[in-house]
Amino acid sequence: MFAMHRVEESRLRRFVVEVLAKKDVPRGDAEIVADVLTTANLCGIDSHGIVRLSHYVRRLDNGTLNPRPRIHFRQASPSTGVVDGDDGLGHLVTFRAYERLVELTSSSGTGAIVVRNSSHFGIAGYYVRRLVEHGFAGMAMTPSDAFLIPFGGTKPFFGTNPLAIGFPCPVVDGEKLAPVVLDMATTEIPFGKIVLAQKEGKPIPREWGFDSDGKPTTEPDRIVGLHPIAGPKGSGLAMIIDLFCSVLAGTAWGPHINKMYREIDAKRKLGHFLCAWDLSRFRPLDAFAADLGAMVQEMHAVPPADGFDRVYYPGEIEAERMADRSVRGIPIDDGVLDDLDDLAAKLGVEPPTER
Amino acid sequence: MFAMHRVEESRLRRFVVEVLAKKDVPRGDAEIVADVLTTANLCGIDSHGIVRLSHYVRRLDNGTLNPRPRIHFRQASPSTGVVDGDDGLGHLVTFRAYERLVELTSSSGTGAIVVRNSSHFGIAGYYVRRLVEHGFAGMAMTPSDAFLIPFGGTKPFFGTNPLAIGFPCPVVDGEKLAPVVLDMATTEIPFGKIVLAQKEGKPIPREWGFDSDGKPTTEPDRIVGLHPIAGPKGSGLAMIIDLFCSVLAGTAWGPHINKMYREIDAKRKLGHFLCAWDLSRFRPLDAFAADLGAMVQEMHAVPPADGFDRVYYPGEIEAERMADRSVRGIPIDDGVLDDLDDLAAKLGVEPPTER
Repeated sequence: MFAMHRVEESRLRRFVVEVLAKKDVPRGDAEIVADVLTTANLCGIDSHGIVRLSHYVRRLDNGTLNPRPRIHFRQASPSTGVVDGDDGLGHLVTFRAYERLVELTSSSGTGAIVVRNSSHFGIAGYYVRRLVEHGFAGMAMTPSDAFLIPFGGTKPFFGTNPLAIGFPCPVVDGEKLAPVVLDMATTEIPFGKIVLAQKEGKPIPREWGFDSDGKPTTEPDRIVGLHPIAGPKGSGLAMIIDLFCSVLAGTAWGPHINKMYREIDAKRKLGHFLCAWDLSRFRPLDAFAADLGAMVQEMHAVPPADGFDRVYYPGEIEAERMADRSVRGIPIDDGVLDDLDDLAAKLGVEPPTER
Repeated sequence: MFAMHRVEESRLRRFVVEVLAKKDVPRGDAEIVADVLTTANLCGIDSHGIVRLSHYVRRLDNGTLNPRPRIHFRQASPSTGVVDGDDGLGHLVTFRAYERLVELTSSSGTGAIVVRNSSHFGIAGYYVRRLVEHGFAGMAMTPSDAFLIPFGGTKPFFGTNPLAIGFPCPVVDGEKLAPVVLDMATTEIPFGKIVLAQKEGKPIPREWGFDSDGKPTTEPDRIVGLHPIAGPKGSGLAMIIDLFCSVLAGTAWGPHINKMYREIDAKRKLGHFLCAWDLSRFRPLDAFAADLGAMVQEMHAVPPADGFDRVYYPGEIEAERMADRSVRGIPIDDGVLDDLDDLAAKLGVEPPTER
């Protein structure tokens, strides 16, 4: 439906840095944001990559994002702490929290950090991918503005509240495979499928969600909320994630969370939660990685169901895409490129590709 | 389909203690097991309560459960440790791990314990219910023998691998409500629904799982595995739980886990994982509980969907059942009571009720 162009990873990265630098974001900080966004695109989670850049610029322009936050860390106990993001870019704020979490977990064996006064942090799986590099199991979660209809209800209350959990790389015959990274929203259907149906003008299944009257709808423009995964289970998980991130941070929760696109003139004040476990405290890491490798080999040997080529473990498909896109470039459609070209022209930076 | 009898909680508890004492389990330890089993029945999770007692007795008889385990704790760092259960009853072993976890979390702010050489531990939510009493958020997980078909595959590989997560009681107008306790299996359909269809001789929907040829079936007797919740999400969660519990404990994982009922002559050697976060390190507990109370009130005010009376939070329905059953008694069907009467007669203890 759209023409696709392949954009080199390094050019995309540079473009993000140049754009943010024009908006007074220090270059070192901008490089962190660029790494989070580019990683999303490399993994194939394009909804959370470069497509969000113009939104961040809009919020830097209107003052609801702080380009030079004074990020503050308070250590609360040997293994816990609170990071105040001073309304900076969520990617940067959460990266600083991740750095502190590595220190806490290295010294204590486990660690947990609550982040407050942050904003959209990109893909939760990014921070987990960094944590597992240290031989940790890692977990990252964030709320988003209300779009999930709690089980038994008719109105959106929680966000799509993603949860990411991961483990270090399986090792098979001395070779490291991709790390295990599960990165999942708590809604059954990703929001991107609604956007696609809207753009294509196609009806959606009645099971996906409700309209503003709390009734099933087949019209993508009328849907105001999606159902959770597995009914009460996904509904409960979304609440748990909001408790760890928002209520524990003492910030707005559920339907009170600032709407990313529809309440553009207020700061987001988001909370996040990160935690980690140093696996080597429980078992030597090489023994763990070898057993994980054996598990993965056996999973791959399970006979596939009709329509599948094999059983994948979480993070494996993303790693395959990353290998492909880092060589062949990141596919970006014309509509998104138009948006990036506009940004480039407005700010006087080089666009990420020639068409 | 079965006649139901109400059995007093205290008599059920006493019955468990008397039965286990006859099998050489020290009384204090038997009381812990009785508390876990009775709590399951009080909550309405009858599949994990008293119905399992005769199975434990069978394993105590054949030596695959150790009535007097030497439970060993090794502290690995300020916030981590490993408990070796010496093949004791999983409820007792995990309770001892919970006690250590409280110490670690109180001193460090977070804590995590891997349990090895354990066995069936009852409901994961029990340990979370205990952890939240300390003002902690708590998490407990366990693998079970293979019954979950990984997404894209045709054979069971992981167990139904339950995950429980909880938070302390919401407070509304100075009154404590039931704690938030999410306790969920990672399969879409609970195994109990298969057992019921088998007993009733009714067909099951083709969507539930596969037969031994990896094909959908409507015959409950032919089903060998169930599908995970939400496809790749539940499949990934089941794997993550097996990594935390089995691979991190250095014990059997996935399809290699001892089958509770079908491999009765070998020790189970199960691993579990428990962790906790001291909420007061992040935010004063009373402020947290008040905001959680406000959230719960707003959830209750969401207009209910057709067929629902209102939105419940996780643990709320279980608390309602607990209030009812602790007064009116625990409903137990004739089939299960026959089994308990047999045990009573064989061991020379008083049966839990007169019929």
